[in-house]
Amino acid sequence: MTRWPLPEPMLEALALARKAGESGEVPVGAIVVKDGEVIGEGYNLTRTDHDPTAHAEIVALREAARHLGSERLVDCDLYVTLEPCAMCAGAISHSRIARLYYGASDPKGGAVEQGARVFDQAQCLHRPEVYSGIGESEAAELLRDFFAERR
Amino acid sequence: MTRWPLPEPMLEALALARKAGESGEVPVGAIVVKDGEVIGEGYNLTRTDHDPTAHAEIVALREAARHLGSERLVDCDLYVTLEPCAMCAGAISHSRIARLYYGASDPKGGAVEQGARVFDQAQCLHRPEVYSGIGESEAAELLRDFFAERR
Repeated sequence: MTRWPLPEPMLEALALARKAGESGEVPVGAIVVKDGEVIGEGYNLTRTDHDPTAHAEIVALREAARHLGSERLVDCDLYVTLEPCAMCAGAISHSRIARLYYGASDPKGGAVEQGARVFDQAQCLHRPEVYSGIGESEAAELLRDFFAERR
Repeated sequence: MTRWPLPEPMLEALALARKAGESGEVPVGAIVVKDGEVIGEGYNLTRTDHDPTAHAEIVALREAARHLGSERLVDCDLYVTLEPCAMCAGAISHSRIARLYYGASDPKGGAVEQGARVFDQAQCLHRPEVYSGIGESEAAELLRDFFAERR
């Protein structure tokens, strides 16, 4: 288990992940923070909204961009409970997110530290600072329990 | 120039790309087709909508999913004037698009035949059939003219 207090935004992202799981969606949550203020939040809504793009990160980034009235989220940080997939990593880069904090690694679909490694491509125009393993055990446990119940 | 008639949906995607350019957005257009019927269309709206995710493909995929009432676009084809980026390639895979037809290659941001090569990753759960170069010269000309005017 994590041995120091998790950052507040990651605790909020974990709470959103729990909410996703309770509504039958894969439990992943995300929070966008600017200057200490939460300006976007999201959890998986792909089934609920009939939207293949409605991953937690995309929902949170879109809300933050609406809030700022700009498609560029300058000086904003994203907290997400699971390693982003290629779609979400691409969106994070397009959004100009400054710092990405994520919880569990995702060997099956992650595209940051494995697979497509979106931020490591020469083409990647904006690479956020990346901090992984923040709330890893809590995020992984939520996912494990969710899939165990459905087997 | 292309020596045979372009498929009707690609002509429509090119028309949408033109519309994007006229409103100051990077000229890319996309169309989703199921059983010969257009069920989703889109063009770049990132600046207009203050939405970093509003690439042509994402707009079209979301519309098609709303139309079908499902996040899975089974037996649907996507026509887009430019090679999809990592975000859009990821969304195409999540959507279960059957066939992807695209126009111009994108050395700067494409993630199908270069860069992240999203569909070639072992993790990619669904890979569409991919046909490239459909309307390539027309799509590339639109982009060239757009950026030439802005230099």
